[in-house]
Amino acid sequence: MNFFRSSKPIELPKHNCVLPHALRVPSLEKLVGKRVVLASNSPRRKEILRTVGLEPEIVPSTFEEDLSHGQFEDLHEYPVATATHKAVEVYQRLVSESPEDSPDLVIAADTVVLTHPPPGLDSVPFEHEGSVHQEVLEKPSSKQDNLRMLLDLNCAICEVVTGVSLVYPVLEAPGYKIKSLDERTLVHFADNPKELLEAYANSGEGVDRAGGFAVQVPKCECLCSSIQGLGGLLIRKVDGDYQNVVGFPVASFFKFLEVLCEEEDDFLEV
Amino acid sequence: MNFFRSSKPIELPKHNCVLPHALRVPSLEKLVGKRVVLASNSPRRKEILRTVGLEPEIVPSTFEEDLSHGQFEDLHEYPVATATHKAVEVYQRLVSESPEDSPDLVIAADTVVLTHPPPGLDSVPFEHEGSVHQEVLEKPSSKQDNLRMLLDLNCAICEVVTGVSLVYPVLEAPGYKIKSLDERTLVHFADNPKELLEAYANSGEGVDRAGGFAVQVPKCECLCSSIQGLGGLLIRKVDGDYQNVVGFPVASFFKFLEVLCEEEDDFLEV
Repeated sequence: MNFFRSSKPIELPKHNCVLPHALRVPSLEKLVGKRVVLASNSPRRKEILRTVGLEPEIVPSTFEEDLSHGQFEDLHEYPVATATHKAVEVYQRLVSESPEDSPDLVIAADTVVLTHPPPGLDSVPFEHEGSVHQEVLEKPSSKQDNLRMLLDLNCAICEVVTGVSLVYPVLEAPGYKIKSLDERTLVHFADNPKELLEAYANSGEGVDRAGGFAVQVPKCECLCSSIQGLGGLLIRKVDGDYQNVVGFPVASFFKFLEVLCEEEDDFLEV
Repeated sequence: MNFFRSSKPIELPKHNCVLPHALRVPSLEKLVGKRVVLASNSPRRKEILRTVGLEPEIVPSTFEEDLSHGQFEDLHEYPVATATHKAVEVYQRLVSESPEDSPDLVIAADTVVLTHPPPGLDSVPFEHEGSVHQEVLEKPSSKQDNLRMLLDLNCAICEVVTGVSLVYPVLEAPGYKIKSLDERTLVHFADNPKELLEAYANSGEGVDRAGGFAVQVPKCECLCSSIQGLGGLLIRKVDGDYQNVVGFPVASFFKFLEVLCEEEDDFLEV
């Protein structure tokens, strides 16, 4: 048997974000060979995208994430604005760093946890919907602060909102377009006994999390994957997209890509 | 520096199903040192329990899982009955194999996917609830059969029901008690384009799954963990316990343990 050495080396594509197990659908096929960047260091977001067959380059944003909540009449716009700042910062930086290899798509996301009115007040008339008072739940400052937040959330509902912004090049000024979505999921806390909340606060899992609880935490020793957190034990039900609570609304993102491919002539074509 | 060798070897407990990261709550503390058995070979169930700090012995049941659906007026009782058969079979087998080390708790579960009436018909009067016609969705026999099922589920709702049965020893005949729960989660399929359903059916992920879709699949190479499946892309929202769709309603199970510890004098005391 003879082996022949090809005189021409096989050229691998410079960028390859679409994995072999990705579903063969138009939007993912259009991303093959493109430079796709995720402006986030979150292992959970990276993993969620990887499971649907997308492995973007990771370039965390340097945006400070210090927007004031007060400037948003509707708090759902707050994570969208943060995501947009992150995506634009990374896009502009990469274009100036390597104008000959600028990104085809930058994806950024920001997740916040908001207070939510109790079920009885849920069905406010549509025209007043924006006026329901909501607050952003921050990260607890200590285990004791975590317990205080959990006691507030117990038997209650909170709303997890992720803003996702996409930035891609177009010919007109300023040279890029921004498209955004937000995804909202209600998380219903069970009527947990105080001992369970104390045990959870003492576990320390919630201290670094907005809202003070985690439904998914990195656990696997090979760091390739994350699994549900102990926080799931406190939750009676999730109403909406579960992955949104983990940190990235992948189903909506995917549908959004399909819509952009169909409706925006310049999407991934410049 | 001197090292001393203890003359008495440290005695490790014979059974240890409670992991160091488990929450310090009464029910889990009561399980320390007990022989706890999971009558299931499902890596997903094992993993869900492990994340909350419980690592039971795995003894898959030999029960055939061939109960006829027709015998249940309310189909929600069907997975509970299967789980009970599995738990009792394993309990009785282990007692006869090693009467001096019989199990303190056997846990079994069975998950089925049922058709569900469309949203408009959702609010049937309570007294008629049992009479809403539901059917069990089986595993698709081929990729083509998978596509047929997905076309039926598209834009529609299905109900994932897990029955969980616990068997534990008591003094009275027949020597054990059975306690069961069922957990129900509604899964709303998005309005997916046919190409996406075809791509999903062709991926083969749904072929071995009841209902023809998977929200969680084992992926990690070290086999220690599973991550969400491509099937999540088809789903608009989950209404209820997400872990129940993965295969084990761990939050309800946990609360059930607490109730049994409080209300059943003989639970884990024989």
